[in-house]
Amino acid sequence: MKATEINIIEEVELENPIFIEALPGIGHVGKLAADSMIDELDATKFAEIYSPYFPPQVFVGEDGVIENMINELYYLKDIGEDKQDFILLVGNTQGLSTEGQFEICKDILDYLKKFDIKTMYTLGGIATGQPVENHKVLGAASDSKMAEYLKEHDIELRSNDGGIIGASGLFLGLGQRLNISGACLMGETPGYFIDAESAEAILIKLSNLLNIEVDTGKLDERAEETRKMLEKAQQMEQEMMGKSTSQDVDDLRYIG
Amino acid sequence: MKATEINIIEEVELENPIFIEALPGIGHVGKLAADSMIDELDATKFAEIYSPYFPPQVFVGEDGVIENMINELYYLKDIGEDKQDFILLVGNTQGLSTEGQFEICKDILDYLKKFDIKTMYTLGGIATGQPVENHKVLGAASDSKMAEYLKEHDIELRSNDGGIIGASGLFLGLGQRLNISGACLMGETPGYFIDAESAEAILIKLSNLLNIEVDTGKLDERAEETRKMLEKAQQMEQEMMGKSTSQDVDDLRYIG
Amino acid sequence: MKATEINIIEEVELENPIFIEALPGIGHVGKLAADSMIDELDATKFAEIYSPYFPPQVFVGEDGVIENMINELYYLKDIGEDKQDFILLVGNTQGLSTEGQFEICKDILDYLKKFDIKTMYTLGGIATGQPVENHKVLGAASDSKMAEYLKEHDIELRSNDGGIIGASGLFLGLGQRLNISGACLMGETPGYFIDAESAEAILIKLSNLLNIEVDTGKLDERAEETRKMLEKAQQMEQEMMGKSTSQDVDDLRYIG
Amino acid sequence: MKATEINIIEEVELENPIFIEALPGIGHVGKLAADSMIDELDATKFAEIYSPYFPPQVFVGEDGVIENMINELYYLKDIGEDKQDFILLVGNTQGLSTEGQFEICKDILDYLKKFDIKTMYTLGGIATGQPVENHKVLGAASDSKMAEYLKEHDIELRSNDGGIIGASGLFLGLGQRLNISGACLMGETPGYFIDAESAEAILIKLSNLLNIEVDTGKLDERAEETRKMLEKAQQMEQEMMGKSTSQDVDDLRYIG
Repeated sequence: MKATEINIIEEVELENPIFIEALPGIGHVGKLAADSMIDELDATKFAEIYSPYFPPQVFVGEDGVIENMINELYYLKDIGEDKQDFILLVGNTQGLSTEGQFEICKDILDYLKKFDIKTMYTLGGIATGQPVENHKVLGAASDSKMAEYLKEHDIELRSNDGGIIGASGLFLGLGQRLNISGACLMGETPGYFIDAESAEAILIKLSNLLNIEVDTGKLDERAEETRKMLEKAQQMEQEMMGKSTSQDVDDLRYIG
Repeated sequence: MKATEINIIEEVELENPIFIEALPGIGHVGKLAADSMIDELDATKFAEIYSPYFPPQVFVGEDGVIENMINELYYLKDIGEDKQDFILLVGNTQGLSTEGQFEICKDILDYLKKFDIKTMYTLGGIATGQPVENHKVLGAASDSKMAEYLKEHDIELRSNDGGIIGASGLFLGLGQRLNISGACLMGETPGYFIDAESAEAILIKLSNLLNIEVDTGKLDERAEETRKMLEKAQQMEQEMMGKSTSQDVDDLRYIG
Repeated sequence: MKATEINIIEEVELENPIFIEALPGIGHVGKLAADSMIDELDATKFAEIYSPYFPPQVFVGEDGVIENMINELYYLKDIGEDKQDFILLVGNTQGLSTEGQFEICKDILDYLKKFDIKTMYTLGGIATGQPVENHKVLGAASDSKMAEYLKEHDIELRSNDGGIIGASGLFLGLGQRLNISGACLMGETPGYFIDAESAEAILIKLSNLLNIEVDTGKLDERAEETRKMLEKAQQMEQEMMGKSTSQDVDDLRYIG
Repeated sequence: MKATEINIIEEVELENPIFIEALPGIGHVGKLAADSMIDELDATKFAEIYSPYFPPQVFVGEDGVIENMINELYYLKDIGEDKQDFILLVGNTQGLSTEGQFEICKDILDYLKKFDIKTMYTLGGIATGQPVENHKVLGAASDSKMAEYLKEHDIELRSNDGGIIGASGLFLGLGQRLNISGACLMGETPGYFIDAESAEAILIKLSNLLNIEVDTGKLDERAEETRKMLEKAQQMEQEMMGKSTSQDVDDLRYIG
């Protein structure tokens, strides 16, 4: 099996960029926050990533034009008072399967080594299963210094309470082994809808931590769009009684 | 693991052939349409494809003789007014597993590169879960020009409504990355039987798009055959209470 | 991942041996029949086969001594009036996963190429889900000549009725591509117990086809032993409420 | 896919060390016993092991600092009257998937070959599904001499009663093929909580077999800690209605 395909669009030089991972997850909290950051600060895409471990499908997007399953790397230069550089990893999917998850994260981090990343943040949601009034942001860190830094910014640390599954956990863990100081920010969210408020809570905390400013005004709008798309997809799936083309692969393979 | 095995039967020269994919899927809509096209226009098989990712089984066919799980490539030369060449991908199965699906589609498309394909159509069914009166054909495209072309032929575009899963989606997506203009035609079908009428609807739309003529008269007959075979297989499965030899592999592996 | 490990115990020369596959399956029909043939005709083991795709476990056998998951090759020389040579493939497991099944069968068949096999029989059970009075043996073949040969021996051919899953199907299919004439004999069996009578029916039909004689007298005894072992294992599993060490891997991996 | 990553911390020379495997399993029986042995006898870590087949996640540990999924090798020198050397394999996870389990065990055993191991013990729990009054330790062995040795120490042998699944079984089986004399000790435990008493029973039997002394006084304390951590994790999972970030990967991958 071929490894992850990383297509470089622009060779870019960055100074100790901070890496931010926000692939799709619960409530789309991390993704909404990172996509906002990309739009509001006008980040530039410099690489596209494909993997055999992405779901074997395409999305039907605007006006019937399809979208490939993809991860993308964006950069930002000289942001905020600290003139900080950033690399953001976003996309419309994560790898499937244990080895897929691992291989994609590892290959991306290997590619990023040349940028000499010293700090990373991974963004995700944490489902409560019930309405959330106060959108708390929970944190975990790859070292005690970063844990301390989170506490100073009023981020409640999780402790001895299970795992962080998927890319947000794997990047943090692989980073820990490379002495990249990292944190995972997890926004509390009911878990059953696209949650702009939780994304806003994360984005505010992240801006504080990074000492930058990001306008969160369009988050509602963005969440609304995603919500509509999701509703339409779900409605379509229900109409099909969950019997869409995914069955092709599993159920009808028996007859020639 | 070895890659996809592509056994060339005939080295053939084709002029910018249009690629048509129609592996088995929901309601057998795509497969019925493509098999008709192969028979009616007398296409020639030029390659047989095997994969470790095909289901680990054989079919019992006519008179007790088995059939391997297989994908096949056929060609057609100088068809219709435009003297158009075609390559058709058909078979009795699709790959299982995420990586299997990906690897097979990628390897086939890699092999096909030498034919300089500029256009592709992938055919499938889309299940409604209830009786379908008017067999609508829905479409999605890999670029807006093709989307426009579909609309001109009264094919309703899907929009922002989920995915196209399996080979029909993957080929379109991989093609998009290679600048192959493509479309997926999806025939509405209840989803729980072999649907010759939906296949006919697809075949009529496809003929229009391709500016060729294909007799759809034998589609009913063909669907009837497939239906009988399927019924017999299902009846046999019921008699066995779903306890056929597939259990060998899973349930009885524990005792020597 | 490393390929199948085939450890040769004895380099043996055989003349166009007939290959017989009988890995564990429904009702242990094929396995019982082949193990009898090995014992009664005093076959010699000449190779042991291991695979990363076998279940990740060992069996606890007689007196607390473990058995590895294994496939084994035996040979027989100058058997019956025709002085026919044989290779038998038996074992206590089959590969798991699609690719595992495929890779193991392919690697074994690749190794066996040097023996210039022209005929193969694969043995299995076919579950009826209800008591079986008359132990019918069903057949399928890799070519019409072999199908005819089965009919001449009063073996009812299956026709257009689904698949043969697992090693019995795969060997037949891979053999078909190598022009090895093959048949699968499937003994009807309820499917929920070790069925010596169905194994006997298979063994009688197989002996006829091969023009050899095999004493089936000890089949009952052999089935009884397997039955006891299976009962004990099931009882133990029930006592554990299905909560044996298999859970280790899945459920308790979350806490360090 | 890359193989198991074994990072050597200290190059160590040992004289025919006895190998002890105790990766997490049912009731954490083996793990608790081995962790006690490591602490009480002050073992030294000499290697860290990572695998693409470990679950794609990290744990949130003490004070919000994450822990990677890991296996670890420790050594002990000149222990007990016999001045025996030991290698212990412990960790917070086992490999997922059939091939993962196999590859990790095989790679570790390959690495350990240079130590010329002649004896191994694998430790695990065996779930009863109901309260256990008398914490019996059951055994299985890779040869009859070891089986005899277990009986001499009043360890009841399992016999013809199913399998030993996961690393405890695989190491024993791979060892058997390398003529490493081995035994699996399985402590009876209800299976639904962390069982310090079963771990104590194992540790006592193991000490007897090894002719060493290990203080079991702190086992209760250790079990209590693990119990608390587990309860917290489960409580958190329940709050989330089983809808934690694991869903990210599976359920929300469809929308970009």
